[in-house]
Amino acid sequence: MREPEYLRDVNGFVRRELLGREAQLDSLAEAPLPLYDRFAETGLMNWWLPKEHGGLGLSLEESVRIVAALAYGDAGVAFTLFIPVLTTSMVAWYGSETLKEQFLPRLVAGNGFAATLGSEHEAGSELARIGTTVRRDGDWLVLDGAKAFSTDTGFAQFLVVIARSADDPDQYLAVLVPRETSGVTVEKRWDVIGLRSSATYQVALRGCRVPAGNALHGHGLRLLEIGLNASRILIAATGLGIARRIRDLCMDYGKTKSVKGAPLASNAIFAGRLGQFEMQIDVMANQCLAAAREYDEVAARPDAAEEFMRQGALKSALTAKMFCGQAGWQIAAAASEMFGGVGYTHESIIGKLVRDMRYVSIVEGGDDVLRDLVYSRYVVPVSKRS
Amino acid sequence: MREPEYLRDVNGFVRRELLGREAQLDSLAEAPLPLYDRFAETGLMNWWLPKEHGGLGLSLEESVRIVAALAYGDAGVAFTLFIPVLTTSMVAWYGSETLKEQFLPRLVAGNGFAATLGSEHEAGSELARIGTTVRRDGDWLVLDGAKAFSTDTGFAQFLVVIARSADDPDQYLAVLVPRETSGVTVEKRWDVIGLRSSATYQVALRGCRVPAGNALHGHGLRLLEIGLNASRILIAATGLGIARRIRDLCMDYGKTKSVKGAPLASNAIFAGRLGQFEMQIDVMANQCLAAAREYDEVAARPDAAEEFMRQGALKSALTAKMFCGQAGWQIAAAASEMFGGVGYTHESIIGKLVRDMRYVSIVEGGDDVLRDLVYSRYVVPVSKRS
Amino acid sequence: MREPEYLRDVNGFVRRELLGREAQLDSLAEAPLPLYDRFAETGLMNWWLPKEHGGLGLSLEESVRIVAALAYGDAGVAFTLFIPVLTTSMVAWYGSETLKEQFLPRLVAGNGFAATLGSEHEAGSELARIGTTVRRDGDWLVLDGAKAFSTDTGFAQFLVVIARSADDPDQYLAVLVPRETSGVTVEKRWDVIGLRSSATYQVALRGCRVPAGNALHGHGLRLLEIGLNASRILIAATGLGIARRIRDLCMDYGKTKSVKGAPLASNAIFAGRLGQFEMQIDVMANQCLAAAREYDEVAARPDAAEEFMRQGALKSALTAKMFCGQAGWQIAAAASEMFGGVGYTHESIIGKLVRDMRYVSIVEGGDDVLRDLVYSRYVVPVSKRS
Amino acid sequence: MREPEYLRDVNGFVRRELLGREAQLDSLAEAPLPLYDRFAETGLMNWWLPKEHGGLGLSLEESVRIVAALAYGDAGVAFTLFIPVLTTSMVAWYGSETLKEQFLPRLVAGNGFAATLGSEHEAGSELARIGTTVRRDGDWLVLDGAKAFSTDTGFAQFLVVIARSADDPDQYLAVLVPRETSGVTVEKRWDVIGLRSSATYQVALRGCRVPAGNALHGHGLRLLEIGLNASRILIAATGLGIARRIRDLCMDYGKTKSVKGAPLASNAIFAGRLGQFEMQIDVMANQCLAAAREYDEVAARPDAAEEFMRQGALKSALTAKMFCGQAGWQIAAAASEMFGGVGYTHESIIGKLVRDMRYVSIVEGGDDVLRDLVYSRYVVPVSKRS
Repeated sequence: MREPEYLRDVNGFVRRELLGREAQLDSLAEAPLPLYDRFAETGLMNWWLPKEHGGLGLSLEESVRIVAALAYGDAGVAFTLFIPVLTTSMVAWYGSETLKEQFLPRLVAGNGFAATLGSEHEAGSELARIGTTVRRDGDWLVLDGAKAFSTDTGFAQFLVVIARSADDPDQYLAVLVPRETSGVTVEKRWDVIGLRSSATYQVALRGCRVPAGNALHGHGLRLLEIGLNASRILIAATGLGIARRIRDLCMDYGKTKSVKGAPLASNAIFAGRLGQFEMQIDVMANQCLAAAREYDEVAARPDAAEEFMRQGALKSALTAKMFCGQAGWQIAAAASEMFGGVGYTHESIIGKLVRDMRYVSIVEGGDDVLRDLVYSRYVVPVSKRS
Repeated sequence: MREPEYLRDVNGFVRRELLGREAQLDSLAEAPLPLYDRFAETGLMNWWLPKEHGGLGLSLEESVRIVAALAYGDAGVAFTLFIPVLTTSMVAWYGSETLKEQFLPRLVAGNGFAATLGSEHEAGSELARIGTTVRRDGDWLVLDGAKAFSTDTGFAQFLVVIARSADDPDQYLAVLVPRETSGVTVEKRWDVIGLRSSATYQVALRGCRVPAGNALHGHGLRLLEIGLNASRILIAATGLGIARRIRDLCMDYGKTKSVKGAPLASNAIFAGRLGQFEMQIDVMANQCLAAAREYDEVAARPDAAEEFMRQGALKSALTAKMFCGQAGWQIAAAASEMFGGVGYTHESIIGKLVRDMRYVSIVEGGDDVLRDLVYSRYVVPVSKRS
Repeated sequence: MREPEYLRDVNGFVRRELLGREAQLDSLAEAPLPLYDRFAETGLMNWWLPKEHGGLGLSLEESVRIVAALAYGDAGVAFTLFIPVLTTSMVAWYGSETLKEQFLPRLVAGNGFAATLGSEHEAGSELARIGTTVRRDGDWLVLDGAKAFSTDTGFAQFLVVIARSADDPDQYLAVLVPRETSGVTVEKRWDVIGLRSSATYQVALRGCRVPAGNALHGHGLRLLEIGLNASRILIAATGLGIARRIRDLCMDYGKTKSVKGAPLASNAIFAGRLGQFEMQIDVMANQCLAAAREYDEVAARPDAAEEFMRQGALKSALTAKMFCGQAGWQIAAAASEMFGGVGYTHESIIGKLVRDMRYVSIVEGGDDVLRDLVYSRYVVPVSKRS
Repeated sequence: MREPEYLRDVNGFVRRELLGREAQLDSLAEAPLPLYDRFAETGLMNWWLPKEHGGLGLSLEESVRIVAALAYGDAGVAFTLFIPVLTTSMVAWYGSETLKEQFLPRLVAGNGFAATLGSEHEAGSELARIGTTVRRDGDWLVLDGAKAFSTDTGFAQFLVVIARSADDPDQYLAVLVPRETSGVTVEKRWDVIGLRSSATYQVALRGCRVPAGNALHGHGLRLLEIGLNASRILIAATGLGIARRIRDLCMDYGKTKSVKGAPLASNAIFAGRLGQFEMQIDVMANQCLAAAREYDEVAARPDAAEEFMRQGALKSALTAKMFCGQAGWQIAAAASEMFGGVGYTHESIIGKLVRDMRYVSIVEGGDDVLRDLVYSRYVVPVSKRS
């Protein structure tokens, strides 16, 4: 298959800006890194935004390829660049036309970022327990609360905040909040284990006022679930990219390292391990693509917004993230033993890749949470089983 | 997705003939079982045979669905019914027009079986070491040797035998041998661990004479490798069908069994395990379908025979079998602990399902062999990596 | 270490009566097999029975060695021979002197069997839910109920039945019931997946009357828990014996099978796998021995009965069974792929060994049950953590 | 069991100096950390050194308890403190009386460190390929070469260097080299992934002259193998200590974190996972102790030096390190998913514990190397199988 142009551009960016700069990417340098500007120069920033808002309108299947290619270079860069899809897809489907016109073309024009503020410390993955509130005050909505983990917020153009209605405890809203809104305070940037070229923040919201029209249509938790479909599939694709990088790192090592008088690459155990990696990588790729195609099919329907509302979390999005997290971790863990003592030092990047890989199974729902969700949504109802 | 008609017919057959008859299917009863005639009544026998030879010409993607549905009922029945694809695909692509006209329409008309005689005791998975020979005797080919494992041979219309040239030790042929040829002796039927509704034989070939035109075009080992593409994908699909059966067996049990005063099905550990199964099943299905589509794409090309000759073992066919064998085994092993003491008796069919599942990782190349093949073909050459 | 005499006798029995007779041992032949009489000829029957009752008084550490040696030959034979320890240890510690005098010397003299009737269909591993009742009728106890799985009952001299008090639903008794007691009916022998040289029965108890003095002292469920300490450790030892047999089977195969022109035994992947097996076997052995020594230490105390009552299920007994079940299964599963196609037939005994191994993780508490028990007893109370 | 005094002292040190100081211990601060002096104040420095040289003469079994306790606090501290045992045990068994008198009492008196220089970049785990040479020059030995990984060298009193004879390529020597010897250059300290409170160096040896009597008796590679017995068992014990810390960290979290309105600690999946951890920890502990007792038994023999020379690498030392590395990693990997998003930040120490745990399977022989060793030494010779 010929490489499409967008992928050639991405791969060029990866070669120029990421490969060989792992130490710096891993240093938790001040965010955002200048290289995000250079990614914008490829013209691919926010590549998924709909054409009607001035975007490129690339599909999620294409996004999987882009993200895997970026993550081959650095998963934190990939995550930083795609995570706005979670925010913008909620806005694109459930925002009013006015709201979309106000924010999406500007995002395209400014090569900007958007962020979602969902998770909170106390609530963890039980989103129904979030304590951030939104109350109506005339034509305004006022938000108060604290959000634990929000990526890109520090430099985003706008945020979508998930909040509980102060009046009706069963109602939740997803509200677009411009970043410069008074009362939005970034309290700290997390010192994370991996993905250290990305930036995740703890954010406080104190009496943030936005027009009532900034509320998206529909139940806030359901909207978040829908938004997570795309981001979970792309998190899975990150795992794919890291896995490919690990495989190639092993192969580079296998060609130079000699064991018992022969290159390691000709050793039967090494061959078996790499054969297993390749199998897992092939399955990861096919699962990411299958999930993306399922998503793209729904997204292409004229009633996409309603259909997503009906389906909520897509099964294949859940299973892609779960599977790529698990298989990716197996690859990372096995590989981390293959470089001898050097693999336990920072002269090798395998340690970084292991730490980066770990995030796939942690962010946006750990496996325990997702297994439970798959079970209740797709195993208990007989008709929905695979 | 609406269930296509062929699948409705298969599911009807499964319900009528297989479900609930596990004890008999597991009894190693005389082969072939009468139910194979009843499958023929669906009109689906040898469903993949090209239309030009009177067949239905269903794709491998459709075959994956059929085989998974059959294996949900009984994996041995599935295997018996699809394994002729290994034989007929070699004939269809590499047999002369005369040969095809002579054997394929008759196979369709008679709802017959075909078998491949490849593996031998000494050689194991190292096919280059096979000892069966073929020598030219005027217009005839004469075959001598012993073949260890050959499914369906006992009741097949014709066989394809892989043999080494008696004259040139580097040359191998694939030769079509009518079952009734003098010198073909079924020496025993194997008492197998699982898939006991199928029949696998040890066969002797003593001075079997067939016309020289019965040799297929191309290197015999390469032809076998090509034929195995379809059967390996369908073996993977068998694993998928068994896995679904196991999941449903667990769910049936989970609804009736009570633990700590609540149905097992509402237990968190049970839910987590079933959620994991469902994830694995979803990935298995997507991998089987991806492999089948890759195969169908090649098969649809006008130069399919040449292209298959170029590619040999397709990566996704290898990885589908490997993955479904591994994931399927994880499911079977985990499930075999979920039924308490009854699960250790023949009152439960879980024991049969575990034994059936085991074959996926054993037949047509164990994982060590396939890992090595994936490594040398698809990892060492950089351009072929996933 | 020189082999002690008892072990030499056991190994002689294994060589004479078990090795090479796997097909018959696996046939579910009429129970008890004549070979149990021949084991009695070694003088080792019920080897653990205290000297004060005429027994040999071998320790549990010695029992681990005996059971592992027996299970090397056949796990069903091992299980049949040691499972009476569950029954007799309850009687020896918690029966009245009269009761012990009445039953234990006779058991020694007659080389007899004893059985415990604990588990029931509905209750499963939740023993507190058992439905078998015992009611007081003057100087008698009357038992009624149905017991699902009880090994050796068909040919035992006496049984210990765990029953709930008909008067006080919180009270449970362990009652010794002579096998010939009227109302004890063996309803069926289970057709089990493995351990087919043993015999496990479903038993009905209908108005069985025994003297009130046949009740053991103490809460019935606690007594059962205490009795299970010895049998769980010996079940673990069975896993050890099977694992050693599998390793040796692999090595025998590895020496005769040739791969790429060299013996399989010199193949790097094979070596790595067997090195891993040996590591696991070494750890299994050390864990069984550590558990047995912990048991023997308690048993050697003058207040052994009270101390066991205080401790209930010993941690190391639980962990030995869990670990040997898990490690043994890993070995069995890996080995079941190492014999090529022959390993999928009954010409190899690997299939039998896999089925036999499975029981370690199933009988006397599956891993979910034991994990929960270890957690609540030994992790939650900080002082009891390992 | 009452805690022995030495263990009380160690635990006091751990509480005072290690717990709660993980960030600093993980910072790769200048070596050696001042806390090593404070450990010396306990009087336990080099606790294993024989009484005849002024040491405490604690056994390896006691060492396992000490090291596990230290590693509960910080594995790097544990490693720094025990790794001199590798050096001193070679000297104690195979050094001349003069040499021992010269160096061991001084080590005791000075609370000093000793280091071994074995591994080299090119050779990796194939020690026979090391390039460091030693040549005889009159009454002197002259050493030249480069050693890749050597812990404690920077601040050691003396080193033992493994070198190939410049004259006879089949001969290897282990030579004691005082740290201040001219030509010993510490070229760099490695920036390691974990164990960052320890210090591992790359060292150059250029024309280092030592008296000929500094050579230990016996083949250098065999001596190294013997020395590794103690250190491998103690590396395994480090894994045990880390595992216990992880378990307690999970339990602390489980008590404060609430899920679905109940403490996480009462969640069934959490309980099952912790029950599994505890089982693994129990088995790790028993395996470390069994290995240590096997070592202590040999060490207590009057012919200990000869017996170790005969046996070389003890099986249980190999299997303890393999098992604790594997089980420890399973625990670390599973736990690293249990803390939600916070577990992916440096606010939790789980990330450090995962990185620390990784070393168990890497230093002093990766599992591939050890599996191969176990196979060739203990599986191929039938009589040595477990």
